[in-house]
Amino acid sequence: MTAVTRTLARYLVESRYADIPAAVRHEAARALLNWAGCAIGSSRHATVECALAALSEFSGPPQAGILGRSERLDVLHAALINGISSHVLDFDDTHARAVHPSAPVLPALLAFAEWRQTSGADLVHAFVLGVEAECRIGLAVFPEHYDRGWHITGTAGVFGAAAAAGKLLGLNEQQMSWALGIAATQSAGLREMFGSMCKSLHPGRAAHNGLTAALLAARNFTSSEQAIEAPRGFAHVLSTRFDPAVITAGLGERFELSSNMYKPYACGLVVHAAIDGCIQLRQEHGLKADDIERIDLKVCPIVLELTAKTKPQTGLEGKFSVYHAAAAAIVFGAAGEPQFSNAGVRDLRVIALRDRVTATPDDRLRKTEAHVALRLKNGRMLSRHVEHALGTLARPMSDADLETKFRGLTANVLGDEQSDELIRLCWSIAGLPDAGEIARGASLH
Amino acid sequence: MTAVTRTLARYLVESRYADIPAAVRHEAARALLNWAGCAIGSSRHATVECALAALSEFSGPPQAGILGRSERLDVLHAALINGISSHVLDFDDTHARAVHPSAPVLPALLAFAEWRQTSGADLVHAFVLGVEAECRIGLAVFPEHYDRGWHITGTAGVFGAAAAAGKLLGLNEQQMSWALGIAATQSAGLREMFGSMCKSLHPGRAAHNGLTAALLAARNFTSSEQAIEAPRGFAHVLSTRFDPAVITAGLGERFELSSNMYKPYACGLVVHAAIDGCIQLRQEHGLKADDIERIDLKVCPIVLELTAKTKPQTGLEGKFSVYHAAAAAIVFGAAGEPQFSNAGVRDLRVIALRDRVTATPDDRLRKTEAHVALRLKNGRMLSRHVEHALGTLARPMSDADLETKFRGLTANVLGDEQSDELIRLCWSIAGLPDAGEIARGASLH
Repeated sequence: MTAVTRTLARYLVESRYADIPAAVRHEAARALLNWAGCAIGSSRHATVECALAALSEFSGPPQAGILGRSERLDVLHAALINGISSHVLDFDDTHARAVHPSAPVLPALLAFAEWRQTSGADLVHAFVLGVEAECRIGLAVFPEHYDRGWHITGTAGVFGAAAAAGKLLGLNEQQMSWALGIAATQSAGLREMFGSMCKSLHPGRAAHNGLTAALLAARNFTSSEQAIEAPRGFAHVLSTRFDPAVITAGLGERFELSSNMYKPYACGLVVHAAIDGCIQLRQEHGLKADDIERIDLKVCPIVLELTAKTKPQTGLEGKFSVYHAAAAAIVFGAAGEPQFSNAGVRDLRVIALRDRVTATPDDRLRKTEAHVALRLKNGRMLSRHVEHALGTLARPMSDADLETKFRGLTANVLGDEQSDELIRLCWSIAGLPDAGEIARGASLH
Repeated sequence: MTAVTRTLARYLVESRYADIPAAVRHEAARALLNWAGCAIGSSRHATVECALAALSEFSGPPQAGILGRSERLDVLHAALINGISSHVLDFDDTHARAVHPSAPVLPALLAFAEWRQTSGADLVHAFVLGVEAECRIGLAVFPEHYDRGWHITGTAGVFGAAAAAGKLLGLNEQQMSWALGIAATQSAGLREMFGSMCKSLHPGRAAHNGLTAALLAARNFTSSEQAIEAPRGFAHVLSTRFDPAVITAGLGERFELSSNMYKPYACGLVVHAAIDGCIQLRQEHGLKADDIERIDLKVCPIVLELTAKTKPQTGLEGKFSVYHAAAAAIVFGAAGEPQFSNAGVRDLRVIALRDRVTATPDDRLRKTEAHVALRLKNGRMLSRHVEHALGTLARPMSDADLETKFRGLTANVLGDEQSDELIRLCWSIAGLPDAGEIARGASLH
């Protein structure tokens, strides 16, 4: 039995900031910007309001801010609530193969940074390591673990939060192995909860429990020291597959954060290529909805398995309608939260165009690929083959794209000036003497 | 698919206090007394000290007391810490077939009762229902769930805390089904942690998370409404066996609390029959250690698989030595925490006698059965066949036995006077206008 937990713990403890490549550090700033935008953008959502109403009266001292709001809670509750808001819109980042990496980790780290002064470089370092831990542990049991019914963002995310917070606490190797163990024995989250508020509770609870694991370990609260690999450890109890080498191979040489992806559109990934083609054609040809006679899409068959609602009635249903998504992309030139709101779905121009969208499955297409054909009322035909949707690793969102997305999420909450200032802070995170500036810049005063 | 979650939720909501038989109410008082003794007796244990040191600075207002201590924490943290101390000594109650019922439920309820005035009858009612929920859910997936590696006191306990707290919060049927769902998606705890401090974290976290589940549900935080039985729900994801009828059959007719057992001795159940025989012979014949030449035991083979340490060096090792246990029972006439402390194991009289104990396996004996033969130095032979160890359902501890156990655990912490007063409060729980009196009576001032 490979000493996986111990090997990972040693790496986490021994890693130095100088070991993190510049490109990975920059990816951390991109993830931070994207995450903060998502959390701020959903800070008034019913899920967040419910959780705050239920739990605020148990909060400790006002140690840490809630993104997009004026409340300050204790560090653990702030991690929980910001973890929930990270994921409410399903608009947060996605590792190329599994976990949503930021939602369980950054809320724990940012709350920590407001409590105990933490430099931006230390936060970046801890974040990179937390992502490394959660992604590797998740991938070592993927996909059987996920197929069994576990929401991997919760189950693996708790390790990420524990590893990251443990790094900031300066745990030694023994304590770090305990932190991973205390995380393992709190690992939870069922896919059965998808479609309910509990889906967002998972990264929130992971942030809270992972941070708690590190705090307990720092006081020498003991756990098993083979919590990941033991016969009754995390991997064997929660999965039928376990490849320990996925956790230990190339530690410090390749970084999972390099495989991080950001969503430009506020809906499931499979609809993105179609939206992308519509927006490109609209912009290149200066099209308006009135110009279009019909939209014909060719898409990967999974798109129609997941998003074939022809008459969506609510914003949430709109996310499961490739017809709505394409029509909204033409009408608005965008596919953000407003386009997937109830109002966006009930927009008469969108509805009129939606009924003239067709979508044909083509099993030669990948799920991030699509053919878009527009027939204009003047008889002209326009078409676009989107090989890789924007936001995939093959065609990542640019830093400017991320700023645009961020502003779309935050402008109504923070206003333009504070949004711009927060963008500046996120890009300069690695040089900030006090990473808590991000939290204060993201809160209302 | 039977609507198990909904059926259980409906029962929990509709049950009235008058529906609980008097014998079950009395069993609740017995469980309360036993639980409070265990939590008070371990209130200075390193596991509890570590957890308090790590987490106190995040606590909210001083809403609820910590048993055996002077600290007051917010309701959620009090539930967590008292849940940990409930289980540290492994001396808490055991359902005849699975869960330790009180440790995840009573800490949540008692903290709640200090926060929002709660009558003793309401607390008893909620406790009975919480035990019903956790035991039935646990038994529906037992033993495959446990065999897979789950610590059922954590994984099922969270349902117990949610159901009980939900009852006190007056949840409606819809909300109660959400509370069970929020509990399900936080269900966790690995048997791999046995032997570390994390074992006690499991009921603590279950109490905390279950209470949180009920508080969230009261604010209409949604979850799946088939969280137990859905294909990706608790039962199928965390077990290979699921018998829904175990949850729904005879609800309100039979009560799992009636199958609750209490340990008279501070070690694993398999050693109890041997201890029992030694104590009986010692008392009936007024024996002293010096009178004994040798002790010969016949025991179920499992006793020697689990507890065959011949030279235990620490209190914990003493719990895994049937030789030490029998010798200590003769020397002290007891087998409580002092007999399984480091000092108890290093007592020279015990060591001298321990080396003259033999134990022979006999596969005709049940694990709660033993034959004890004493050869005295004066040549006399004494023997005793213990058919059912004290504390089993066939031979339960009497109320007086529970009081003796309680005093042994609490005298050094609370003193005799406060211990006696707390015993009185526990027996009269069902008539108390304010159940919070128990918590105040169990704390230091």
